[in-house]
Amino acid sequence: MITLYHCADARSFRALWALEELRLAYELKVLPFPPRVLAPDYLAENPLGTIPLLVDGATRMTESAAIIQYLATRDGPSALSVEPGDPAYGDWLNGLHFGEATLTFPQTLVLRYTRLEPKDRRNPQVADDYGRWFNARLKGLEPRLATNSGWYCAGRFTGADISVGYALLLAETLGLDARFSPAVADYWTRLQGREGFVRGKAAQSDAPAPSWQT
Amino acid sequence: MITLYHCADARSFRALWALEELRLAYELKVLPFPPRVLAPDYLAENPLGTIPLLVDGATRMTESAAIIQYLATRDGPSALSVEPGDPAYGDWLNGLHFGEATLTFPQTLVLRYTRLEPKDRRNPQVADDYGRWFNARLKGLEPRLATNSGWYCAGRFTGADISVGYALLLAETLGLDARFSPAVADYWTRLQGREGFVRGKAAQSDAPAPSWQT
Repeated sequence: MITLYHCADARSFRALWALEELRLAYELKVLPFPPRVLAPDYLAENPLGTIPLLVDGATRMTESAAIIQYLATRDGPSALSVEPGDPAYGDWLNGLHFGEATLTFPQTLVLRYTRLEPKDRRNPQVADDYGRWFNARLKGLEPRLATNSGWYCAGRFTGADISVGYALLLAETLGLDARFSPAVADYWTRLQGREGFVRGKAAQSDAPAPSWQT
Repeated sequence: MITLYHCADARSFRALWALEELRLAYELKVLPFPPRVLAPDYLAENPLGTIPLLVDGATRMTESAAIIQYLATRDGPSALSVEPGDPAYGDWLNGLHFGEATLTFPQTLVLRYTRLEPKDRRNPQVADDYGRWFNARLKGLEPRLATNSGWYCAGRFTGADISVGYALLLAETLGLDARFSPAVADYWTRLQGREGFVRGKAAQSDAPAPSWQT
């Protein structure tokens, strides 16, 4: 049985979305954010205190985009995977990383220095630097959407769209979606219409809180 | 023929190191850093202006850790890959992402706000926040090294070590290596001893500059 440690709408939503797209069985443990402060017992499971943690037998993973790929390929090729030899294989790997390293990390600077830090440590300059960085990098998406039937690669929905799609979810949370181009806004609408996305959203609101919250 | 656009000791060193470990044929184009400012013709190749860009026929990739995996698997399993079904498969994918998203991006904040920005935009608070973040995340490495014969996973050197190893190279550049634990310092010494690392370092110093530099 797969266990996913998750905070609502945090990066771990990538793993939850992938689990739902693939219709895999899993146990969901929902934690308050940030868990390293609000759920210190979690440090026994993941000493880094970061979300997600996915446990699958002896496999323990902490990187959300890597978990998408793991789930997409652990039982052989799936609807979310692109395999070596496919002309889109490099694009697919690129998209899995692009969604996190290039599109999500910059937004965490905006989150930290406009919301999470105490008022005297907030920093509009840094938040603005990385808000603009995010928007500049987002332009890299548009030619891909135009040549892949509206998806990141391979002409179909894959795990790369889950990785990038989470970055768009975070942008909406932070109010950065106001700057989406029409093509990116349409893509975001399409992603939210995925059954796996809808089921993931429902699962996180239905899940019981872990014992240390109750 | 594979072409790699590279800046000395930038993230693209991951791709160069992987090419040398795998002994693949490639053409290296060395650019000044940052290319979007100092080599504007490069924007015709990569509109994002980011490094690396790897071109392999119709495949064009911009994410350094994704390129490691691509090169490690494009011709079937290799010495750098761990395949689905192997007990270390999840660890391997995790390490490819961990090296970039968790260990490298925070250091780019240190680089930006202590060195790259004009003096009036530098920010010691942010540089310190992310220097400490990097060191905290680095602790996640130590249990893995202890149980994998001194490597990230699978008991041997793999592409995950190239991803993480580049983060240690960047840490040395930034002076963050002074805080390496003895286990991490030993790992860094071991990585620098890899023939592929040594050949990659030599290749970047031997390469002719691209035409727009001369």
